[in-house]
Amino acid sequence: MEHARPLPTHLARRYLGWKATSFAENESWYRHLAQQGQHPRAMMISCCDSRVHTAALFNAEAGEFFTHRNIANLIPPYEPDGGKHGTSAAIEFAVTSLKVAHLIVTGHSACGGARGCLDMCTGHAPELEAPHSFLGRWLDILRPGYERIKDIPDETAKLRAIERQTVIVSLDNLMTFPFIEAAVKDGRLTLHGLWIDIGSGRLEQFESARNGFVPI
Amino acid sequence: MEHARPLPTHLARRYLGWKATSFAENESWYRHLAQQGQHPRAMMISCCDSRVHTAALFNAEAGEFFTHRNIANLIPPYEPDGGKHGTSAAIEFAVTSLKVAHLIVTGHSACGGARGCLDMCTGHAPELEAPHSFLGRWLDILRPGYERIKDIPDETAKLRAIERQTVIVSLDNLMTFPFIEAAVKDGRLTLHGLWIDIGSGRLEQFESARNGFVPI
Amino acid sequence: MEHARPLPTHLARRYLGWKATSFAENESWYRHLAQQGQHPRAMMISCCDSRVHTAALFNAEAGEFFTHRNIANLIPPYEPDGGKHGTSAAIEFAVTSLKVAHLIVTGHSACGGARGCLDMCTGHAPELEAPHSFLGRWLDILRPGYERIKDIPDETAKLRAIERQTVIVSLDNLMTFPFIEAAVKDGRLTLHGLWIDIGSGRLEQFESARNGFVPI
Amino acid sequence: MEHARPLPTHLARRYLGWKATSFAENESWYRHLAQQGQHPRAMMISCCDSRVHTAALFNAEAGEFFTHRNIANLIPPYEPDGGKHGTSAAIEFAVTSLKVAHLIVTGHSACGGARGCLDMCTGHAPELEAPHSFLGRWLDILRPGYERIKDIPDETAKLRAIERQTVIVSLDNLMTFPFIEAAVKDGRLTLHGLWIDIGSGRLEQFESARNGFVPI
Repeated sequence: MEHARPLPTHLARRYLGWKATSFAENESWYRHLAQQGQHPRAMMISCCDSRVHTAALFNAEAGEFFTHRNIANLIPPYEPDGGKHGTSAAIEFAVTSLKVAHLIVTGHSACGGARGCLDMCTGHAPELEAPHSFLGRWLDILRPGYERIKDIPDETAKLRAIERQTVIVSLDNLMTFPFIEAAVKDGRLTLHGLWIDIGSGRLEQFESARNGFVPI
Repeated sequence: MEHARPLPTHLARRYLGWKATSFAENESWYRHLAQQGQHPRAMMISCCDSRVHTAALFNAEAGEFFTHRNIANLIPPYEPDGGKHGTSAAIEFAVTSLKVAHLIVTGHSACGGARGCLDMCTGHAPELEAPHSFLGRWLDILRPGYERIKDIPDETAKLRAIERQTVIVSLDNLMTFPFIEAAVKDGRLTLHGLWIDIGSGRLEQFESARNGFVPI
Repeated sequence: MEHARPLPTHLARRYLGWKATSFAENESWYRHLAQQGQHPRAMMISCCDSRVHTAALFNAEAGEFFTHRNIANLIPPYEPDGGKHGTSAAIEFAVTSLKVAHLIVTGHSACGGARGCLDMCTGHAPELEAPHSFLGRWLDILRPGYERIKDIPDETAKLRAIERQTVIVSLDNLMTFPFIEAAVKDGRLTLHGLWIDIGSGRLEQFESARNGFVPI
Repeated sequence: MEHARPLPTHLARRYLGWKATSFAENESWYRHLAQQGQHPRAMMISCCDSRVHTAALFNAEAGEFFTHRNIANLIPPYEPDGGKHGTSAAIEFAVTSLKVAHLIVTGHSACGGARGCLDMCTGHAPELEAPHSFLGRWLDILRPGYERIKDIPDETAKLRAIERQTVIVSLDNLMTFPFIEAAVKDGRLTLHGLWIDIGSGRLEQFESARNGFVPI
């Protein structure tokens, strides 16, 4: 590997600051985590978006959330075709090996992935429809969500709706995995859907009874 | 979606605490982020492991790192086959749309994925060799790394070596993506490889000149 | 004292969240509690186990339960030998000064202390039999309970039985304290025995008439 | 055991409410805790006082804090005399078996135990000086703390000082246990001292560098 470069100086300095402060204060806890392994209570699935920090949102500490982050917090359907499915591998490990009790999918406002899917499905993003577009093929997962909201006339309302569909489609797809379905049915695993509005900090959760999101 | 359940109360309370403190203190910044969109300077690729918090490691704030987390921080090779490749979609979006300047791959000690691959390649994890194992198929990405370190006699040294191979294999695979190779060659993008020892907090970076890791 | 360290940051943040929400909402009640002193209606004796939260179990608020927690919720027999008996001091203060009306002993499933006593009494935990083992000497309190259940052939049933004996032995020992016996006999104090199954949430109470536990 | 009585109806009803709500929402987590055992990150030592709820203070959930509560959150000195030392048994189990990373001692304002010790040491509580007084003998642990603050002229200031001494004396005594000293010295365990003012909700922590308490 000849292309790796040294870390930018400001990041190296910030790391040294972390080492001298936060790490030093929690040295015993990090040593414990290294020796005793991780026992996270929940798996968190959220977007790659740089503005979404679920650990901060819940003042979580190292060891608490097993976290998978991908574009638009999407879970693909169960496809046991022998392919390299990173998301499916992550939930398989969390549920069957770590035996987490909670699986939390967190969507967010102003999601570039949700907007990309909306643009693609309405013919405004031909580059995403190209077969070789990794992003386009990934956002195909969200198409069933688009179908449900496509008749909303107002553009802003439609965008907000598809942002929330990222969570609903993922929860639906989670239940197509046999090991998830079994764990949910016998009470070992609970699913949760959240959506955070970045600008206002309002957190909403999906309520099955209302088939919609309500603020916490 | 009938299976979603309310968030555990303690998490709801912790969120309300975040809203009343951290969010309230940074309200203008979150509003700015919501209105101006994200402009992250780097993409961070790290493991799902609950003990690895790269945002904490660099005292990063909302908006700074576009972050993808998967099992063992692995990048698969470039495969434009029309499949749903979540990791490839994430790096495509980061490099071609967000135009991040840095791509940082961070591995870590005591990585369950690295150990799983070692077990699988040495015949000690037949469940991972099953074609339907999402985790096993995902860890196949790391096999070229195993090949490089398989003759190390000491078991602990071998484990530490394959943990670092998660980073090297990923950096190698990144360069198989045409849009990455082009961006690196003309100076728009820089690659970095890091490895954190959880128990001691020691951060190492890959140095191309030495073809190995050295502490920061 | 040169060894104290700052609180881990995530706990400091969570406290600030509590201060800004739960405390702020109940400020007048906390002020009242500070000025008027505590007048708890019951003393709760439960295990140190991190999974047992009796305040949550009864939606109890600050001021309601005077709570002593030790390993396996054990009460030693009355021993007025001038030694430092923390448990005896706690019940003495609760009954003679605070004049609580109820004394509740709550045991639980999967109790490490109950299992430790069983292992020790059957010769499987020599480290607990060492005279310097604080844990072993403390669990000696439970030996009379072991004697009562030792002939149960099934191992799981035996474990469940000794877990419930932690409650029965403690209730028995409570009556050896003269100030408890007097208060019970003249109706100022009532004793209660509970046992919670962590996994199922089933709460059982000891019924003197049946000499056994029944679900609530 | 013929003296146990049924739980007061209002408590039974509240339990049924918890079962139908909080437990139902977290059923998967409780099942996980029952099957996987506890892995608490910290041991909390606090007072029996009904107004002190450290779990609420940190929005902690079942499984997080291994909690010992006794009168005035006191740790006696190391006394391997073969006696039944409940507090010493609890810290032995937390540090040597559970391997907690943090040991937190939390004192509080308006502490009946601290006031009792002050009264006893100044000759105003002869009943506590009686050899058979469990409470008096227990509060003897705090005498070294009284010696340090006895010359403070103002009575209120003196009371506040001895309330904080409950924490300092306990931290000092913790270090007399060989297994604590060893774990602290090699970085496996960190000690923390806190003090909460009930009426104002102000939390202070002991800073070794200043040899005093400062607000968080």
